[in-house]
Amino acid sequence: MAWWKVSRDFNNAISQDVNPDLASERESPSFRVETLTNILDGGAAHTRLRRSVESAIHRDPLFSREKIYFMSRKERYERAIRITFYLKEKMKAMGWTSEGPESKFIYRTLGGEVALNIHNVFVKCVSTLGSDKQISTWLPLATNYNILGTYAQTELGHGTYLRGLETTATFDISTQEFVINTPKLTATKWWPGDLGKTCTHALVQAQLHVKGKDYGMHPFIVQIRSLQDHSTLPGINVGDIGPKMSFEHIDNGFLMMRNIRIPRENMLSRYSEVLPDGTYVKRGSDKINYFSMIFVRVSLLREEAIAALIKACVISIRYSAVRRQSELKPGAGEVKIIDYQTQQQKLLPLLAAGYAMYFMANYVTDRYNQVYTEITTGNFASLPELHALAAGMKGLVTEHCSSGVEVCRKACGGHGYSLFSGLPSLYTKVVASCTYEGENTVLHLQAARFLVKCYAGAQSGQPLPPSTAYLASPIPSGCQASNHLDFLNPEMYLRAYQQMAYRLVASAANKLRGLVQSGAEQYVAWNRTSVELVEASMGHCRYMIVKTFVEALKTLGSEPEIQKVLKRVCDLHALHGIFTSSGDFLHDGYLSGKQMGMVTTAYLDLLALIRKDAVLLVDAFDYTDEMLLSALGTYDGNVYHHLFEWAQKDPANTQVDSVFENYLKSYLHGSQSKL
Amino acid sequence: MAWWKVSRDFNNAISQDVNPDLASERESPSFRVETLTNILDGGAAHTRLRRSVESAIHRDPLFSREKIYFMSRKERYERAIRITFYLKEKMKAMGWTSEGPESKFIYRTLGGEVALNIHNVFVKCVSTLGSDKQISTWLPLATNYNILGTYAQTELGHGTYLRGLETTATFDISTQEFVINTPKLTATKWWPGDLGKTCTHALVQAQLHVKGKDYGMHPFIVQIRSLQDHSTLPGINVGDIGPKMSFEHIDNGFLMMRNIRIPRENMLSRYSEVLPDGTYVKRGSDKINYFSMIFVRVSLLREEAIAALIKACVISIRYSAVRRQSELKPGAGEVKIIDYQTQQQKLLPLLAAGYAMYFMANYVTDRYNQVYTEITTGNFASLPELHALAAGMKGLVTEHCSSGVEVCRKACGGHGYSLFSGLPSLYTKVVASCTYEGENTVLHLQAARFLVKCYAGAQSGQPLPPSTAYLASPIPSGCQASNHLDFLNPEMYLRAYQQMAYRLVASAANKLRGLVQSGAEQYVAWNRTSVELVEASMGHCRYMIVKTFVEALKTLGSEPEIQKVLKRVCDLHALHGIFTSSGDFLHDGYLSGKQMGMVTTAYLDLLALIRKDAVLLVDAFDYTDEMLLSALGTYDGNVYHHLFEWAQKDPANTQVDSVFENYLKSYLHGSQSKL
Repeated sequence: MAWWKVSRDFNNAISQDVNPDLASERESPSFRVETLTNILDGGAAHTRLRRSVESAIHRDPLFSREKIYFMSRKERYERAIRITFYLKEKMKAMGWTSEGPESKFIYRTLGGEVALNIHNVFVKCVSTLGSDKQISTWLPLATNYNILGTYAQTELGHGTYLRGLETTATFDISTQEFVINTPKLTATKWWPGDLGKTCTHALVQAQLHVKGKDYGMHPFIVQIRSLQDHSTLPGINVGDIGPKMSFEHIDNGFLMMRNIRIPRENMLSRYSEVLPDGTYVKRGSDKINYFSMIFVRVSLLREEAIAALIKACVISIRYSAVRRQSELKPGAGEVKIIDYQTQQQKLLPLLAAGYAMYFMANYVTDRYNQVYTEITTGNFASLPELHALAAGMKGLVTEHCSSGVEVCRKACGGHGYSLFSGLPSLYTKVVASCTYEGENTVLHLQAARFLVKCYAGAQSGQPLPPSTAYLASPIPSGCQASNHLDFLNPEMYLRAYQQMAYRLVASAANKLRGLVQSGAEQYVAWNRTSVELVEASMGHCRYMIVKTFVEALKTLGSEPEIQKVLKRVCDLHALHGIFTSSGDFLHDGYLSGKQMGMVTTAYLDLLALIRKDAVLLVDAFDYTDEMLLSALGTYDGNVYHHLFEWAQKDPANTQVDSVFENYLKSYLHGSQSKL
Repeated sequence: MAWWKVSRDFNNAISQDVNPDLASERESPSFRVETLTNILDGGAAHTRLRRSVESAIHRDPLFSREKIYFMSRKERYERAIRITFYLKEKMKAMGWTSEGPESKFIYRTLGGEVALNIHNVFVKCVSTLGSDKQISTWLPLATNYNILGTYAQTELGHGTYLRGLETTATFDISTQEFVINTPKLTATKWWPGDLGKTCTHALVQAQLHVKGKDYGMHPFIVQIRSLQDHSTLPGINVGDIGPKMSFEHIDNGFLMMRNIRIPRENMLSRYSEVLPDGTYVKRGSDKINYFSMIFVRVSLLREEAIAALIKACVISIRYSAVRRQSELKPGAGEVKIIDYQTQQQKLLPLLAAGYAMYFMANYVTDRYNQVYTEITTGNFASLPELHALAAGMKGLVTEHCSSGVEVCRKACGGHGYSLFSGLPSLYTKVVASCTYEGENTVLHLQAARFLVKCYAGAQSGQPLPPSTAYLASPIPSGCQASNHLDFLNPEMYLRAYQQMAYRLVASAANKLRGLVQSGAEQYVAWNRTSVELVEASMGHCRYMIVKTFVEALKTLGSEPEIQKVLKRVCDLHALHGIFTSSGDFLHDGYLSGKQMGMVTTAYLDLLALIRKDAVLLVDAFDYTDEMLLSALGTYDGNVYHHLFEWAQKDPANTQVDSVFENYLKSYLHGSQSKL
């Protein structure tokens, strides 16, 4: 055994006990962490179920992620496929079903490192867009993995704007087939997951042409690889689009099709169909599709974006309670970096934002479920409001969470740059959510369109949906706060947020109207106002998040200690938002410069208070070490031990490089005689 | 040949001509791009020299980077070593020397993908900290690569705070040796580049102990690997610290030492020495070390941070002039995304900031050279000002450039997430500059300490250095602008910036003094003010950047067209800064809400104006396609062609995976009878 392993000093340093600096943060807690965990989980029963799933998966070595940071793209891809097929068996063995309550914990536990996610989208599309006959034909094959599908919509030259897609499906009456073509390079399908190397079928979105007429985009099932030997079928060019910033385990692919003939029955026909004689039939409303797009956005808020931010907070806050650097009081020794106000300023508002967005996601999910119930009774009245809410929140939350993860990472200094911190991979993955499922700026503009419509409606006396009722009128007088403690009253900051949101929406709407009235075409006016329209959407979302947090406080458990700490978290989130976007609150004089000084004081005082509970507040989210996969963020806080041990496992330290023989040797040997 | 390669339609689409959408941006330019290039290069002669270096390197296939996005960490490391040794020969062949004018272009041309950067730091340290005898012993060996060095300062548990370093060097009089030890796990040297697998020697910073007395940190040369067979020497534990967010080509390493004995002569002794009898001798001032730290910060501003931002602007702006998406005017066809105000809002202020910081870097470099000249005559008076300037600018610029690269990347939508865009690797690399060479928050606090001192000095009537002279008094009255055109007057916005910076410094200084006067200990007061102190440093830097741009305008060439466009770029940079940090200008009422509306109008109008010159303004920086290594950013703008061609080269498309045989086959074959 090497000397550094047997040295007594080292053994002392790498004890398996919880690091004393982290242990001290958990002594005499000001609230019961388990109670908060139960609240976050939605009840103690959920906590138990979640832990049972996590434990079953963590105990199974086949799911271990411990080598991931050393794996090549090829190894990551093969691992993801292996895990995915194995999971299917595991679920059967455990009695878990994909509709069961356990399923929502599985993805979280596996760190999203699975394949066939887009196959699941394929399955979902078949079941919502297919006729009963199509469903009975394709669904069993797909759910049993007898075929593997992908969803091919985005093209090399076309994304958000669906009418711009160029792939064509031309009906040939003589053979009763659709002929699928990629007419130009830019029409190449690009990005679909599981397409590059895995899937056998693709749900291709293509412009339907019948008898020379273009009916717009429709979904077609196209086989692209042999089920026998997985070879590419004739007329198909398919492959991997190359490496990405993350998602090394997914084979995002491209697809070109040349005169691919598929039977008439392969166009999914629940909502529209081409009859044998070429007659195009449209039936029912496909608003429900629109609704599944909202579902995806609502789900990704918590599962991708907020989860990533919270994990980053867990890692960086635990590390900040262990890492010591520089002296505050001369001669008193190095202090925990979490005791620096600047470190608190980086991390604690993100922790507060994590809580705020978590409760907001609960609210959006509830609204989604309410609207879903309404829709099943044919009432679509709330759909525009829900759509705008999901769009704006997706835009705001994915941006805030992504940038927040990077702040956490940088706050861990050099070690945050190591993959072992777990933070680089959190960032490179979560930041994709700013782009997929609707680019954020586009989504904010969609939300703003709704807000501007509400504002105009209010001007002409129409009733507004609850979430935008505040747009009916500004708050008549300025903020009444006369000292910094006044800003610890939620009503006080909530009114400031309301007025801020009102002003941003009203200002953008008025500019837009003014431009149109002075002769600009509608589209020109819209474009010239779009920077301010995006701000209006963000302002509305920021207000909604504070509002839902304040309302959630009223329902979250009865323990006064929990109430107290969550109220502080809410205050911190709200005041930090005013502090960092002070111009939005000062612009119309609703807050004065003097009051902004009070906000600053109240905010900075809160940092010091929340700091005391910071480790407990991240512990409450109950992420296991296996899920965090971070040498800096383990529950035991033995960060240096873990960094050192993980580095020893790096294959770079055992593999043979050719550099000494090929390059160094001839130079170094020149030195022998001289030394 | 596959069908998609011979198809006539496809050949049309992948023509080698410049994409017409990009070509149209370069028609009838409003200024001569070459003139601007010469200005940026500092003269036409420099442009010619730069291009000759670039061309010599690009023509040499051994320097090709075209496979980099597909390479493993091991391959990247070996490639960097190969390139580095080959470069040494190439330079000899070309007649380039490391002190010659060509050398500064080489690193830029190679995209920084070289090894032995820290070996160069080792060389620099020996030559500045070594005695004449040490220099004559070690320097020839090092410059000839007969030994390869690293600089080992940072430890696993210790970074910025040098007094906290734990490695020890104990003088043993009996043998006239220093005994080097890593006493604890946290004392393990961690991060040094070239250490993990390459170097033979390390310049180890260690606490010097002589006869039981601790003399603080000193530099020692320690051999760690055999020159004969490169094996690790006894008592040494060295290796790679594992994968990082970028820098795959560098073997950052760890180093533990146990009773390593080195001769007394191995302590670099220009400024301090241990005599044979154990007497510790200190001679001269080592302020010059301090100065070389400043040098590194000044250099990295342009070479790492600003260069990365500008490259990202080149890529994203060219792509935005080619990418078309959605219709603005209904029925008029899809428009270039650069024509959307929201896209302009993302990219053009970053382009303007790139120019602003570029000229600021010129200014800081000039100041550095002036102060260097003063110092050689023994005059250290300007050193504190220069130190604060470099510290604050390093903090501000690396942060702004890193976040800016990400904005550019996200503005390219899905394709920005592909490594082929060149943007992910730009980001993951440049963001490290926020941490290395002084963590940004720490640096801002150092700069703030100087500013607060200046402010206090002014209060008591002391003279201030030129860059902080404005701290003597606030601007007596508010902003006089009465319409949005007034904000196109540099004096108008410069005064607003000056007052903003003044207020932030004064406010932090007054809070600090107030806390101390009311009984807080100095260190407590400092910590409780540190968030505002960081803001003060940033405010000062933002002001300085606008000021140096305004002053640079007066000296940049005589062509009115160039003057006009650069004036607009300057205006855009300044007004965007007010627009996005409006609270800083509204807080004390220097600007009113109404005036902020004027700023917004002026700013948004400028976006539309600069948009017309945007492609020319990025072309002027004259980055070659080889340097950008981006499918989206090539000069010809054939983005879809390049993305498609690069994907075809992905080894993932030819390598054999085991997934079909191992996992898919058994499932898929189950489907045969059913379809």
